Amino acid sequence: MMKYCSHCGSQVEIRVPEGDNRPRHVCNTCSTVHYQNPKMVVGCIPVWERKVLLCRRAIEPRYGLWTVPAGFMENGETSRQGAVRETLEEACARVEVEGLYTLFNLPHINQVYLLFRSRLLDLDFTAGDESLEVLLFEEQQIPWERIAFPVIRESLRLFFVDREAGEFPLRGGTILRTAEASKGYRITLDSAPEGLV
Amino acid sequence: MMKYCSHCGSQVEIRVPEGDNRPRHVCNTCSTVHYQNPKMVVGCIPVWERKVLLCRRAIEPRYGLWTVPAGFMENGETSRQGAVRETLEEACARVEVEGLYTLFNLPHINQVYLLFRSRLLDLDFTAGDESLEVLLFEEQQIPWERIAFPVIRESLRLFFVDREAGEFPLRGGTILRTAEASKGYRITLDSAPEGLV
Repeated sequence: MMKYCSHCGSQVEIRVPEGDNRPRHVCNTCSTVHYQNPKMVVGCIPVWERKVLLCRRAIEPRYGLWTVPAGFMENGETSRQGAVRETLEEACARVEVEGLYTLFNLPHINQVYLLFRSRLLDLDFTAGDESLEVLLFEEQQIPWERIAFPVIRESLRLFFVDREAGEFPLRGGTILRTAEASKGYRITLDSAPEGLV
Repeated sequence: MMKYCSHCGSQVEIRVPEGDNRPRHVCNTCSTVHYQNPKMVVGCIPVWERKVLLCRRAIEPRYGLWTVPAGFMENGETSRQGAVRETLEEACARVEVEGLYTLFNLPHINQVYLLFRSRLLDLDFTAGDESLEVLLFEEQQIPWERIAFPVIRESLRLFFVDREAGEFPLRGGTILRTAEASKGYRITLDSAPEGLV
C-alpha cells in the first residue's frame, strides 16, 4: 500500500487524476501519478521423457507444497528468459523452451501466469535456495492434492490431456478466487481440450 | 526513478537484498524491498470484413501516427478484458475477442505486448479522447510508414501473411532497440510464418 511519493517523499492521496477514469495514488506536491499494474509470473513445465519436474517449495506461501519452477518476470528480460532463469534458480535445471503453453489471468491478485513447455537438457538438477527438493514425476505420481497453486494444478492437468492427444495448443483463461465456488476458485478456460473431465 | 520509500517515506538505496541476486530499491528504515517488474500492454486487432481498424494517436509518444487500440493492463482485469476496454476507450468500438495472436517482449522498455484478434461488432466507432481519428483500412491502404510502434507494424505484417494462409497460430518474439540494427530495432520471431519476406 503506497503512502508516500517515491519521487519526492510527500504523502500521496488516492483520487482520479484529470483525464483518467479510475483512482490512482497521486502526489499533490510533485504531481506524479503512481500507476499500479499486474505482474507477470513466468515459468516452465520441464519434461524428461514421460516425466515432469516439480519443486517442493522452501518458502511461503505454500511452504512444503509442489509446483513447477516459476517466479516474477524481471525488468530487462524476455518472458522466455525469465522462465529459463527461474528453472535454473529453483531447480538448478537447464531447459530448452519449446513454446508458450498456458496463459492464465489471476485478476484477484493482479497476476498473469505464462508457463512454457520445455525440454530438460540433462538430469543434473537439484534443489535451489527456494526449494526443499526437486523430483521427476510420471503422470500417475503427481501429488495432485499437494500442488501449491490452482494455476499450476490446472496447467498440469491440461498438459497431460493434451499430451494424450499429441498436440499442445495455447491454453489458458481466468482463475478467480471466489467465496461461492467450491474449493474457493472459479476456473474459466478460453478453450477446453476435448475429453477434459 | 524511486528515491523515497512509498511505505514509510525514508530515502531508499539501491543494493542487492540478502538472499537476492540483483540490485533493488531497498528501504533501510522499514526494510521494504521495492521490486520493479515489466508491464503488460494489451490491445486488439479489430477486424471488419477484410479491413482492420486503426487509431491515429492524439497523445505522445508518436502523436499523429497510427496504431491499434492498446494500453497498459490494469489491476483487477484480465488481459482480454483490458484489450476490450482499450478498444472501447480509444476507438469507442465494441469487439468480440477471437484469440490471443501476438506476444512480444520489449525488454529495453520492460514491456510485454499481448494483442488479440477481434471481430468488430458494429460500425459505430469514433475517436476516443486519446485518438485523433479512427478508420478501417484494407491491407493495401495501411500507412506502413506512419505506424507508431515497431511491435504494431510487426503484428500487422504477420496478421496479413497469416490471413493469406487462413490460420492464426500464436506469433511473437522479441523486439529490441539497438544502435547496431537498421532502423534501430532488432526483431526476433519465435516462429516465422512461411512466405514472410
